[in-house]
Order: sequence, then C-alpha cells, then structure tokens
Amino acid sequence: MTNKAENVIKEKDLVLIYQDEKRQFLTQVVSGLRLSSDLGDLKLSDIIDKPFGFVGKTHLGRDFYCLKPSTADLMMKVKRTTTIVYPKDLGYLILETAIGPGSRVIELGTGSGALTMVLAKFIGPDGIVYSYERREDFIENARKNVERAGFVRNVEFTCAEIGQKFFGQNDVDAIFIDVPEPWAIVPAAAVALKGGHHLVSWSPNVEQVKRMVEALQAHSFQRIRVKEIIEREMLVRLQGVRPRERGITHTAYLIRAQKVIAMQ
Amino acid sequence: MTNKAENVIKEKDLVLIYQDEKRQFLTQVVSGLRLSSDLGDLKLSDIIDKPFGFVGKTHLGRDFYCLKPSTADLMMKVKRTTTIVYPKDLGYLILETAIGPGSRVIELGTGSGALTMVLAKFIGPDGIVYSYERREDFIENARKNVERAGFVRNVEFTCAEIGQKFFGQNDVDAIFIDVPEPWAIVPAAAVALKGGHHLVSWSPNVEQVKRMVEALQAHSFQRIRVKEIIEREMLVRLQGVRPRERGITHTAYLIRAQKVIAMQ
Amino acid sequence: MTNKAENVIKEKDLVLIYQDEKRQFLTQVVSGLRLSSDLGDLKLSDIIDKPFGFVGKTHLGRDFYCLKPSTADLMMKVKRTTTIVYPKDLGYLILETAIGPGSRVIELGTGSGALTMVLAKFIGPDGIVYSYERREDFIENARKNVERAGFVRNVEFTCAEIGQKFFGQNDVDAIFIDVPEPWAIVPAAAVALKGGHHLVSWSPNVEQVKRMVEALQAHSFQRIRVKEIIEREMLVRLQGVRPRERGITHTAYLIRAQKVIAMQ
Amino acid sequence: MTNKAENVIKEKDLVLIYQDEKRQFLTQVVSGLRLSSDLGDLKLSDIIDKPFGFVGKTHLGRDFYCLKPSTADLMMKVKRTTTIVYPKDLGYLILETAIGPGSRVIELGTGSGALTMVLAKFIGPDGIVYSYERREDFIENARKNVERAGFVRNVEFTCAEIGQKFFGQNDVDAIFIDVPEPWAIVPAAAVALKGGHHLVSWSPNVEQVKRMVEALQAHSFQRIRVKEIIEREMLVRLQGVRPRERGITHTAYLIRAQKVIAMQ
Repeated sequence: MTNKAENVIKEKDLVLIYQDEKRQFLTQVVSGLRLSSDLGDLKLSDIIDKPFGFVGKTHLGRDFYCLKPSTADLMMKVKRTTTIVYPKDLGYLILETAIGPGSRVIELGTGSGALTMVLAKFIGPDGIVYSYERREDFIENARKNVERAGFVRNVEFTCAEIGQKFFGQNDVDAIFIDVPEPWAIVPAAAVALKGGHHLVSWSPNVEQVKRMVEALQAHSFQRIRVKEIIEREMLVRLQGVRPRERGITHTAYLIRAQKVIAMQ
Repeated sequence: MTNKAENVIKEKDLVLIYQDEKRQFLTQVVSGLRLSSDLGDLKLSDIIDKPFGFVGKTHLGRDFYCLKPSTADLMMKVKRTTTIVYPKDLGYLILETAIGPGSRVIELGTGSGALTMVLAKFIGPDGIVYSYERREDFIENARKNVERAGFVRNVEFTCAEIGQKFFGQNDVDAIFIDVPEPWAIVPAAAVALKGGHHLVSWSPNVEQVKRMVEALQAHSFQRIRVKEIIEREMLVRLQGVRPRERGITHTAYLIRAQKVIAMQ
Repeated sequence: MTNKAENVIKEKDLVLIYQDEKRQFLTQVVSGLRLSSDLGDLKLSDIIDKPFGFVGKTHLGRDFYCLKPSTADLMMKVKRTTTIVYPKDLGYLILETAIGPGSRVIELGTGSGALTMVLAKFIGPDGIVYSYERREDFIENARKNVERAGFVRNVEFTCAEIGQKFFGQNDVDAIFIDVPEPWAIVPAAAVALKGGHHLVSWSPNVEQVKRMVEALQAHSFQRIRVKEIIEREMLVRLQGVRPRERGITHTAYLIRAQKVIAMQ
Repeated sequence: MTNKAENVIKEKDLVLIYQDEKRQFLTQVVSGLRLSSDLGDLKLSDIIDKPFGFVGKTHLGRDFYCLKPSTADLMMKVKRTTTIVYPKDLGYLILETAIGPGSRVIELGTGSGALTMVLAKFIGPDGIVYSYERREDFIENARKNVERAGFVRNVEFTCAEIGQKFFGQNDVDAIFIDVPEPWAIVPAAAVALKGGHHLVSWSPNVEQVKRMVEALQAHSFQRIRVKEIIEREMLVRLQGVRPRERGITHTAYLIRAQKVIAMQ
C-alpha cells in the first residue's frame, strides 16, 4: 500500500505556503487565484499536481515551499471571531482525556471552531463532536472554518443558550468547556458525561479557576487538577542559541476532572 | 446510539483506581487479585460489571474511585526501561504534525512504548505505527505495555541498529525521533517521509538540539522550530491558590521541521 | 589603599567551606572545633590566618575550599524558625525600593532574620533597620543569626503584636512586609512611610495578593505592581547544557507600591 | 533624628512623575521647564518644595504623582547606548556576591552605566567602583547617567581595550562582567579579585555561557553556577487575577563563581 498519490496537491487542498518565518500562508488552492507577498506573486494553478514539499519560485525569483499544514496550523489560521485555544494547551488537554477514533465528545462553546476541527479530526469518521454555541454568527463562521479544514462531516452544531439542562446527549466520552462561566455548565455536564470520564475546561483568570474547581467538587467530580502550560521558543542560530526575548507569557489555566457516580 | 454498555468494567480492562493524589493505581482487572494500599484492600472481582466512575470502599471503609484512564495515564504508568516522553511535550508535538486516524507513522526508538501506544491510539484501526528500536529487550517490554493498553494491533515493531539507510517504509505521514543522536537518522528520515510532512524530535541538551537543527538544515528541511513546554501545577485549596512549590523544571527541547523536495 | 589584610581568615569569621555542590557549610571559625563530612575532617584552627580562597585537604586527603560567603549564603544558611525570603525575590525587591547606605527601614515580621541581615548590610553603619515581630522566640533566634553574620549593630528589634497603629517611627525610606495578613498593616505602614517611597510585601497565595492590592488601593498607594520571579538553574556539563530537571517552582508573589499624600 | 526635610523635592532632584502605567517619566527638576503628556502639562517649578508623594494636577485637571524613583527606575530610565542589565537579574547577582557599603568593585564594560550607578549606590561613600569600557563615547554617556542619578563620586571610569592583563587594581571584592566575550577577561579577573570572592557575568547565548564556564574552570574558579531569572507580571484587576499575556521571555544567563588560590 502506498498513499503517494494522496500527497499530490489538488484543487481545494489546504497548503501552507512558506517563504520564511514572517511569510507563511495557509492557502486553499483555487485555480485562477494568486498569492502575493512582498517577495513576489505565485499562481495557485501552478502548484496543482505538484507534490507537497514542492519548492517553487515567485515571479521575482524567490523560493516558496508548499508544505502540509499541521493540525496546529489549521487551528491557528482559522478566521477568528473569538480568542482560540492554543496548541500547547489543547495538545495537553486531549491527552488528559481518553478520546480517540470513534469517541463522542461535547464541546462548549464553539467559538471560532479551532477546537472543533481538532476534536473532529482525532475522533475520526466513526466519532462525533456535539458543538454548542449560543451565537448563531459564531457557528456560521466556525462551520466554514471546520469545513475548509475538511472535518465538518462529524460535527453537529447546536445554537443554544448556555443553561443548566440543555445537552441532548448522554454518555459522552469527554466534555471540553471554553466559556467565561464554566461553573454554570457543571450540572449539565455531570449528566451528559460517562461515569469515570473526563471534563476539561480552561480560563484565563484565577478567580474563574477557583469557582470552577468548587463547582466540580460540589458535583462529585474527582481527581481535579489545574495546570498551566508555558511555551518557550528557543532560537537556534549561527550566532548562538537562546530563548526568544519576547513572546506570549500567559494564555489560560487548564482544569481537568473525572466524574464519579455518587452512591445512593 | 449509546455506548453505555461499553462503560462497564470488564475483566482485563485497565482501571485507574484512585484514592487520593498519592494513591492512584493503573490496574488491569483480573478476578482473584486484590489491590492493597495503606487505606485498605479491595478485591478486583468486586468491581467487575460496575460502571466506570463507581465509588467503592476498601475493607477499612475508605473510598476508592474506579476511573477511566486518560491517554496520559496510559503513557505515564508504563513499565519503564527508559525515560519517557511527557504528555505536555507529546500533546504539543502531535498537533505539530498532520497525523490523525489512518496515518502511517515511523517512531524511533521504541523505548518503553509510551509514545508508541499514543501514536497507535490516534492513528486508529486504519493507520499503522512502524516502531524501530535496537534493543530487543526494550521491544519486549514495550510490546507488553502497548498490548496491555489495547493498541498493539496497529504497531509493527522492528529491532534494528540505528543506521542511515534502514527504514523499510516510504511516504510516511510523520516521523517521531527519540534517540540520543537524532542527527544520524536525518538522511534516512528524509527518504522515508512524505514531501511537505513533519519530522519531530526531542532532546534534553542544547548541544543535541543545535546539532540536530544543523542536520535538518543540511538535508533541506524547512520551517525548523525549537520549543520548550513547561508545565506548572496550580494548587487550588481552601487556604489559597498558588503554584506548586516544587516539581519538574525541564524534560526536553522539542524540534519540528518539514521536508521539502529539493529541485533538480 | 589595600585591604589585603582583611582577606585573611580570623577567629569568629564566617567561612563557606566548600567541597562540592552537596557538601558546603557556612561555618564560624572557632579554634578547637572540627568540621566533618564523609570526605574527611578538618581542624578549624588550621585555616586561621589563611587567606580566603585557600585550598586545604581533609584528613582523608580530599580538597576543601575556604570561600567568602555571599550575602545570599548568609541568608540561606540562617537557623530557620520560619520560611525565609529567597535571594531571587529579595534582590529584586531591594532594587524596587530606593534604599541604600544610610536608609531607615521598617521590617515586619522578623522571622528568622534572613531579610533583617540583608537590609542591615545594605543600609550600612549610618542606617537603621527597625525589625518588628510578635514572637519573642523568633526574635531571639533572629538576633543570633544577624549577630553571627556581623550586622546586628544597626538593627533595633521590637516584639509587638501586629496591630494597626504601632510603628514607633515616621518617615522611613521603605517598609518590607512578610506576614500572612499584610493588609492589616497597610494603615500603619501608610503613616510610617515617607511620601512617595516604597512598600514591598510578598505572599505565596493569590488571594493574599488580591486582598493586599485592594488594601493598598484603599489607602491611596499608587504604582502598585505584582511580579513573580522564577529562578531556573542551567547545568553546564561536559555531556551537555540543559536546565536542571527538578527544583523549586514557586516561592511568593511580590508586591510593590508607593505612598502618595492625599490632597485635602 | 528625622530626615523629613530630605523628603522635599528640590531643584535638580530626580522625580518619577507618574500618571498611569503608560505615562511615567523619570524627570530631573529644573525650574523653567515643563513636562507634557496627552493628559496635560505641568510646570516643574510648581513641584519644588513639595514633598515626595505630592499629588498635583496638569493644566487639563488630570492627577499626577511625584514619586521617589527606585533603584530599578534609575537603571531602567538611563539614556541607553547599549542593552542594559535588568533589575531582576542584577538584584539576584548583587546578593550572589559579598559586596556592601565600603566594597571595592570592578565593572566591565561600563555600557550605559545602569549597573555602574547601582554598584556605586550600594558600595556607598566609602567604596569605589572601577568601571572599564573600551568606547570613549559610551563612558561619556554613562558618566552623565551616573551623575544625574547622584552616584558619580565613587566611580572611576577607565577607557581601555579589553585585554588579558589590564586591571590596575588588586584585591577587589567582586568583579561584574558584561561583555560579549567574557572568557577573555578571566585571566585578568583572576589576578584582580580577592581570594574566595565573587566573579559574576551574564550572557544571552548558551554558547557564551559554556565557553565562560570552561574558562572559569581552567582558572581554578570554584562553585560555578548558572541561573536564569524569569520575571512574570501578575495583573490584579477587578475582572480577575492572571499573569500578563505578553512580555519579556529572556534576557540573559547569569554566571557566578568564586576564586580559589591554587596551591603551589
């Protein structure tokens, strides 16, 4: 078996056109369109049928690279209506649950769909993501983002006010919560989640974390842990190796907990 | 569709028996065996047919919780013959590639199999992990670890000296490298990897990182980046919220790069 | 001018006897006493009249080094009755005030005297540290620690319950607060401190920080800032350079503010 | 004794005029001059004879605060010809030496004089800073900076090419090195430094650190340690407490070592 054929760039594919660290573009290939930067133009039709990894030249003779977008690229380059979860945080959180191909997962709220597409990707064709959001316009934008990334088949979007009783699912394998008041969702989440399984949530402020942890304790969640994941870039250059001097210093505190079935 | 049935604990299942933060055991359920801690004994046969999330009592009357192991739990609780990659690092690295259900991935070296099982989980039944290791005894231990976690079907182990030309695969979707001298593998990796796709590698020391980056540059890899992921636990307690006072302060520097197809 | 003479080890001097990273002892030189480790014994009388920097040998023939204790060594090697402030935190805090030789400073509470001795050192013979503590036994221990370090002349210890009105000084150049409920001291501190000058305080928990900041705002302090200082050790070894793998990950949040004189 | 009198703002004093976090100005009081921001103008003559801590109003009726500059303010607000050492780093390094009032210290290179003024402040009227720099124009700028801060009396500037043998002093209490190739200074530093005393140095890149550590080892320095000090700001606001989202992520690696006197 070879999937060499699959590694050829086709119409509608997402390609990461990379020139250098400051010029990298997640681009959907549409014949007739051009991509332009100060290093020159390229016709997207010229890269169709080329393999991923292809090195081309702009009309100014500068190199560009046709790279495969990573999952992180797909997330980070969505059209944003909201702040999004970062790969450093989401990668950790996914491993803190038990989800994989075939899982059924609730996400709340949909936001820009960055998380939605990653969940949809990892649960695969046999799984399903139930994505809740109270703003119709956010869902519209998120649906386009997820569709463009190729993962919309296994997502069911629901526009609903975030209340205490609204989930239409039971026995889901994990619940991902990204809303400003996550504690309000805990009762509904405790109903929808499979016993022993994982709820994860993240918030930028300490007060939110504290209130969420109290809500989880009050609803018999166990093994509650809060982590912060800090990413530090190392610059490896001829003149020397050192951490980057400026950058992102905080995104969110990450909470994980597991549902227990209280005895009667 | 419901998979409630699947959430019942059965013989051979892996259960995370949790008493408190200092007493948590990843346990394979085997009737006739007992689990003991200073908080008392429990018979594993007593939890068969109970749902995940079940709260039981030891013979001393202390609570224990039957929780679903997360992917991170499966990794961290392998029987170790080597140091292993940490969830904070691996979660980030997986998102830095394009792998998902159905992917074909090379891993080198197998080590204790912690990475192997996570890759096998996320590539799912239609994917395959080619896992290389030069020590037969490591493979034996890793195979048991992966088997116990339930993901051995889609792994092909190969015992081979790590040279420059040995991979038996072409067009794999990603290569994960965890060996002391990763630069020696770059030529072979450059052949086996699909164009435009991702190689990731990690090392504890700066010198290793520098030499690896130089090897990647020499073999036309592009978009090379080095990150460090630092995990910080927050303690959320009645008496106050604060970061934990002592803990792990370094594991590894993480490298990612993408293969380009040099022009002729 | 030369102070070579002063660099000779004399009876009663504090010497940092260093054998390796695991064997380093802040020792007061007393003839007739011996220092012992698993690398052998040395007679303290043998190092009298030797210069600092002297390399001696234990009775087992192993090297030891007679080093000058740094200010950080003096702090870290006090006999402790309490947790102490760390050099990484205190160094930063001192620079966040305007104190120097000749300053008058209030400290509360005395604790083990680690902060006391550093303040006493930097304000010099023309300055004074007013050190308050409610526990007599803590003062006794701290006085011995500060005396041994040689800085007791410019310290005035007061044993007093921490209330709202008790400072006997006005117009001090800075106030250093290290108590569990620093907000209770803010009114008294606002009276004792010179206009425009600096109050610093530190606490391990977020809630303490929040309440302290609110108290400072309520008493017209301005330019309030909260920082955390994280120390990371780099291991530089033949086999490679990397951060240390385990260590201290949190000590305290540091608060600084300046007093303004409200208009009438 | 009261030094209330000294807390009145006088002609030539340095005042930190603070309006808010984005509008803060280290200003030398000169009658006849005005300070202007988008929040309005103020005449500097109007704050003469006011106490530090005074709250005034601009011509637009907006508050400003006349605060005492901290040592960190003096450092950070120098006129820069070079990058400067940060308070978080310098505070730690000062405590890693034994210097205090009366010490004799060598600094190399002078740079913008930020370090010079802090050393001059803490060694006080009985100490002296020998500050070396190879660029005459840097010394000129540094001298003005140190003079404006009020600490120039105890500094001796020398313009000299940085070689291996040039220090004109012996038996200094500490040496502070901030040059791109600190290893070239180690032989000269080993001569000038008192036995058992402290050399500190800092560099942004790992390679510099490694080479410096090797040079220190080759010249019999002991107790060599490398640290990194990371500062993290916490935002304490009505809407919640959290770390700042973006900021400085690396300045320098800090090296400290102590001179031993090799036996003959």
